[in-house]
Amino acid sequence: MSPSSLMDKRILVTQADAFMGPAICQRLHALGADVIADTDPLLETDAPARLIERTGIPDILVANLALPAPNTRASEVQEPEWQAVFDTMVHPLMRLCTAVLPGMQARQRGKILLIGSAAALRGMKRASSYSAARGAQLAYIQALGVEMAADNIQINAIAQNFVDNPTYFPPEIQANPRFQQRLANDVPLGRLVSAEEDAEFVAYLCSDAANCFVGQVFPLCGGWVTR
Amino acid sequence: MSPSSLMDKRILVTQADAFMGPAICQRLHALGADVIADTDPLLETDAPARLIERTGIPDILVANLALPAPNTRASEVQEPEWQAVFDTMVHPLMRLCTAVLPGMQARQRGKILLIGSAAALRGMKRASSYSAARGAQLAYIQALGVEMAADNIQINAIAQNFVDNPTYFPPEIQANPRFQQRLANDVPLGRLVSAEEDAEFVAYLCSDAANCFVGQVFPLCGGWVTR
Amino acid sequence: MSPSSLMDKRILVTQADAFMGPAICQRLHALGADVIADTDPLLETDAPARLIERTGIPDILVANLALPAPNTRASEVQEPEWQAVFDTMVHPLMRLCTAVLPGMQARQRGKILLIGSAAALRGMKRASSYSAARGAQLAYIQALGVEMAADNIQINAIAQNFVDNPTYFPPEIQANPRFQQRLANDVPLGRLVSAEEDAEFVAYLCSDAANCFVGQVFPLCGGWVTR
Amino acid sequence: MSPSSLMDKRILVTQADAFMGPAICQRLHALGADVIADTDPLLETDAPARLIERTGIPDILVANLALPAPNTRASEVQEPEWQAVFDTMVHPLMRLCTAVLPGMQARQRGKILLIGSAAALRGMKRASSYSAARGAQLAYIQALGVEMAADNIQINAIAQNFVDNPTYFPPEIQANPRFQQRLANDVPLGRLVSAEEDAEFVAYLCSDAANCFVGQVFPLCGGWVTR
Repeated sequence: MSPSSLMDKRILVTQADAFMGPAICQRLHALGADVIADTDPLLETDAPARLIERTGIPDILVANLALPAPNTRASEVQEPEWQAVFDTMVHPLMRLCTAVLPGMQARQRGKILLIGSAAALRGMKRASSYSAARGAQLAYIQALGVEMAADNIQINAIAQNFVDNPTYFPPEIQANPRFQQRLANDVPLGRLVSAEEDAEFVAYLCSDAANCFVGQVFPLCGGWVTR
Repeated sequence: MSPSSLMDKRILVTQADAFMGPAICQRLHALGADVIADTDPLLETDAPARLIERTGIPDILVANLALPAPNTRASEVQEPEWQAVFDTMVHPLMRLCTAVLPGMQARQRGKILLIGSAAALRGMKRASSYSAARGAQLAYIQALGVEMAADNIQINAIAQNFVDNPTYFPPEIQANPRFQQRLANDVPLGRLVSAEEDAEFVAYLCSDAANCFVGQVFPLCGGWVTR
Repeated sequence: MSPSSLMDKRILVTQADAFMGPAICQRLHALGADVIADTDPLLETDAPARLIERTGIPDILVANLALPAPNTRASEVQEPEWQAVFDTMVHPLMRLCTAVLPGMQARQRGKILLIGSAAALRGMKRASSYSAARGAQLAYIQALGVEMAADNIQINAIAQNFVDNPTYFPPEIQANPRFQQRLANDVPLGRLVSAEEDAEFVAYLCSDAANCFVGQVFPLCGGWVTR
Repeated sequence: MSPSSLMDKRILVTQADAFMGPAICQRLHALGADVIADTDPLLETDAPARLIERTGIPDILVANLALPAPNTRASEVQEPEWQAVFDTMVHPLMRLCTAVLPGMQARQRGKILLIGSAAALRGMKRASSYSAARGAQLAYIQALGVEMAADNIQINAIAQNFVDNPTYFPPEIQANPRFQQRLANDVPLGRLVSAEEDAEFVAYLCSDAANCFVGQVFPLCGGWVTR
C-alpha cells in the first residue's frame, strides 16, 4: 500500500517473457524496483548458477517458470513430456534457489517467491505430468521456507490457476464456449483473475510488509481451491 | 501498493478497541479510508442490525470479533464458557453479514473480511471451545464467499495466530519463558507477527487489488500452519 | 479387516434413526459390537449427560448429529434457523464429549468419532448456517483430538458429503436431473458414496487398528474435496 | 473388517524389501491376497514396463518407493542427490502407473495406492530434495485419481511420517534422545505409528470397501499434519 515499498529492491524475474513474467515485471518496475528481467529458459544445468553469477544475488527472486501445459491422457504420458515438465519447472527452481541462498544467508535477508500452480492442490484431468511438476515445486518451497525463516529469508509460493496469461489462457481458449462453461461451473469468481491482480499480489508479497509469511502457499485461482 | 487504493472507502471495523482493532483502524485511516470504528461487543441479538442501520452499509466490513481465549481442559468446558465464545464471535458475525449483504447486493459491490483464527485449522490443547467458535466463523465465511462472488462481493478470512495483540499475547505472556520456548519450537518465523504486518495485509485485502479472492482463508501465523 | 475387531466394544451411536445412524448401527452390530442406538435428538442442555449417566461410558462414541440442511440464501438466514443448526449439531457434541471424556480418561482408553460434513471444508451456496455449524464441529474435534491423544483417547471426524442417506439425499433429490448433473460435474466419483461404504469406514475407524489417528478429519465425499 | 475382502486379489507391491514393503506384504498376504512382492528399485527407464509385462496387470498396485532421506541443508543440495530422489521415487511412479492403467481401463476396474509422505504437506528442515520428490508424487496421484475415477479405478495416497520402518526410523534414530524429544513435541500421538497400523490401513484402502475414495491424500503421521 506504500509506493516506496519496493524502491531500489533488486528483483530477479525469470522467464520474464512468459507466463506471468511481463505483468510482474511491469508492476514491480512501476513500484520502483530494479527489475532484472531474464528470459533464459534455464534448461541447462549450470544456467541458473551462471545467471546469478552474472547478475549478483538479488534482494528477491521471483521464480516464474512455465511451459504450455501438456494435455495428455494420464495413460499416454511419455518420457519426453515427463522430462520436459521437470526440466522446465522443477530442476531450474532448485538450481536458482541453491544459487541465491548462500548470498542471502550471508546478508541475513532475502525473499524467494514461486509463481506456482493450484494444479498441485486439486486434481485435474489430462494434467498429470504438469501437476506432478507443480507439486514438486510447492513442496520444495514449503520445506525451504521453514528452513530459511531463521535467516530472515522469506520463501513462499503463489498457487495460481485461472489467471489471465498468454501461456495457459491464450485468446482462443478464452473464446472457447466449453472453457467459458468451465469457468462458470468451477470458478466461483466467474471470471479469470487478471494479470494485474496477480502482479499486485506478487508486489505485496515482495514488499517488506510481507516479511511475516514463511513457507506458505497462497492459492490464487478465483476460489477454485481456497486452502 | 498504491496509496490511493482505500481513499474514501467506508470501512466498518467492529470491536475496534480490541484484538486487531486498533492496529487495523490506524492503518486503514492512514491509507485514506473513512473508518467507522465501532466498539460495541454486539452481544445483543439486534445490536448488529442497529449498528448497520445507524452507520449505513459500508463499502467493507472488517469483522473483528474476539474475547480472551479460555484456557480450559476439554473435559472441563462448561455451558457459560461455551455460550460466551459463540455469543461473542459467531452469532454477531452472522448478524453483521446478513445486515450488510442486502445493501451490498443492491450495490453489486462490497467486501467482508473476517479476522479469524488459525486455531480452527490446527488443533491446540485447552482451546476446544475457542477453536469450535473460530471453526464456525471460517466455514461460514467460505460458504458466504462462494455464494456472494457472483454479486461482486468478496468475502474472505484471515486465520491468524501468533500475532502481536493485547487480547491474546499481552506483555506478561510474551515475557514468559515457556511461551518464548513455544514460539521457538512451533512457529517457523521465530517471532510474533507484528500488528502492523497484520494490518497491512488487512489493508491489501480491503483494496480493489484483492477483488480476485473469494471465500478464501489466509493463514497468517508465522508458518504455524501454511495451508 | 479382522472380524473380531469390534467384538464386545460398547459403542454409543446418537440420533441412531437419522443421517448415517441406521447404516452405522447395522454394520457395527454385524461386526460384533454392543451397539447402544440412542434416538434422542439431545436438544435439552442436560440430555447428553443424562444419556451417558443412563448408558455408562462407552468404549466408543459415534457422534451422529444432523438435521435436514436448510437451503436459505445467505442474506436471508434468520435467528431460528441459525439457532437450530447449532442446537442440533454443535452444542450436543460438546455436551456428549464432556460427559464421556472424564470416564475415558480414567480408563486411559476411548474413542470419539464425529460424523461431520465436508461442507465445512469447501464453500457451498445456500448452506451458510449449516456450514458454520459443521465448521464448529470439525475444529472442536481437531482441538479435542490433540489434547486427548496422550490419554490414549482417539478423537477424529469424517467430513462427508454426497453420501447416500435419507436425511440429505432422499429419493426425490436423487431422481432430480439437476442433482444428477451436479453429481456428474462436481463429484469425481460420479455417484453417491453408499451408506455401506460410509459405515465400513466408520467401523474401521472404531477398531483398534485405527488407534494411530488423532485429531484428524477424513474427507469422504467422492473426491469433492480431497484434503 | 471382513477377512475375505482381499481374497484372491492380485496385489503388486514394489520395493517390497524396503520402507513399508515387508509389513504391507505380510498383512496383505495374511488377508488372502495374492501378493507379488517385487524388489527391483526400478531405476531403469523400462524397468516398470518390464515388471508389468512379466507379472501382468495387477488388481491393485501398491507403489512403495523410497530411499533413505537425505539430510542436507537446503543451500547445499547438489545435482546427484536431487536426481536420486526423483529417479527413485518420482519417475518410477509415473512409469508404473502408465504401465498398468491401460489394462485397468480395459478391465474397468483397478486400484493404485501410493505410500507417500507427509513431508509434502508440511515443511521440514534439511529435507528439501526429499520433500520436492514426495510433493511430485502426491500431486500426480491427485490428478490421476480425478481422471481415472470414471473408469472405476481408484487412485489414492497415504501421506505418512513418523511410522515405524527401517528405512526412515532405524533403531539408532529411535533411541536418540533428540528424536524422542521431537516425537514428544511435534507428534500428538506421542509415539511412532506402528508398521502394523500402517499396513492395516493399506489393507483397508486396497479392499472393495474403499471404492469410494478417489484422488485422495490420507495423512498418517500421528497428528503431525491432519489435513
